[in-house]
Amino acid sequence: MTLRVYGDSASGNCLKVKWICDLLSVPYLWEEVDVLSGFTRTPAFLALNPAGQVPVVELPDGRTLAQSNAIVEWLAEGSRLIPADPFERAGMRAWMYWEQYSHEPYIAVRRFHLHYLRKRPEELDPKLFERGSAALERMEAALAGGPYLVGGAFSLADAVLLAYTRMAGQGGFHLGLYPNLRGWIARVERDLNLEPLAEAA
Amino acid sequence: MTLRVYGDSASGNCLKVKWICDLLSVPYLWEEVDVLSGFTRTPAFLALNPAGQVPVVELPDGRTLAQSNAIVEWLAEGSRLIPADPFERAGMRAWMYWEQYSHEPYIAVRRFHLHYLRKRPEELDPKLFERGSAALERMEAALAGGPYLVGGAFSLADAVLLAYTRMAGQGGFHLGLYPNLRGWIARVERDLNLEPLAEAA
Repeated sequence: MTLRVYGDSASGNCLKVKWICDLLSVPYLWEEVDVLSGFTRTPAFLALNPAGQVPVVELPDGRTLAQSNAIVEWLAEGSRLIPADPFERAGMRAWMYWEQYSHEPYIAVRRFHLHYLRKRPEELDPKLFERGSAALERMEAALAGGPYLVGGAFSLADAVLLAYTRMAGQGGFHLGLYPNLRGWIARVERDLNLEPLAEAA
Repeated sequence: MTLRVYGDSASGNCLKVKWICDLLSVPYLWEEVDVLSGFTRTPAFLALNPAGQVPVVELPDGRTLAQSNAIVEWLAEGSRLIPADPFERAGMRAWMYWEQYSHEPYIAVRRFHLHYLRKRPEELDPKLFERGSAALERMEAALAGGPYLVGGAFSLADAVLLAYTRMAGQGGFHLGLYPNLRGWIARVERDLNLEPLAEAA
């Protein structure tokens, strides 16, 4: 069964799905979708995901699934990427919801405005920097307690938070301020078999 | 084992936890936290949840868990509120992530500004109304296909989306425009043994 993954390879949310497929050897076809092209607002795309968001995966029978963090948990079910202990598994999901609520809307959005839309920092809502920095500080503090976010072992929480954290420099955040975070980025990149991004070095 | 649930009973995110504990007969102590009081920014509260957000649950051994949707999935594990089929379970989580990313930040936030901070509609970012309405329209369309959001049966997806959808009128949204949604609200309120909210009638 080969999945079709619709994603923009510049999007951290989409890369999460690619990384977990690659790591777990799940066969897939990547369908590149440029979010700047307007394709995600067309009827053809809205039939795949009425929310108009990438990533979305399509099964051979036509069923679809959206939301990056729901997709990766489905892909990884039963693997070592999900803690066996129910409370640790819940803790993993708490980080994943926090990523979508308190991290991505500031760090990914500021990166999108600066790096893709080529806006200047002074054109942006200052909340993006303030709340994005608060998110990085929270991760920095959590990582003082151990090498990974949940239970001392690599899990989906690390994989999904890596996506935009490693690219935070493109959003004007200063990863040099966060030594625990930089060590964690290198560690999780190794766990995912990724080449280090130059900016995180 | 009695849980301690720290929550603001005016917050839909917090009520989700109360509803699922009540429905599944999970014993808990409710610790009322007024988010307008500033208590969630105190060191005592940040020790419970460094993100400074309610709800958070505390186990008798002192471990804590945050994020409403992670908490309710932990509480409901193994119950009829979570589909047994892995793909339906993933679809349930897709709605739950969508709720936190594309619904709550507009509908709950607009309600907070109008109903609690007593701002006037013209003081608010018009995006709150536009995107909140788009979220309600997406649910209305999905509910044309069946009585519940996932797989024809009541699940956590319905419970978590009920929280702010039934209070959308307090955010200045017009539930009268959405007949499927109004039927669904009444149905899910019954499933959760809740009294109907007058405004959704």
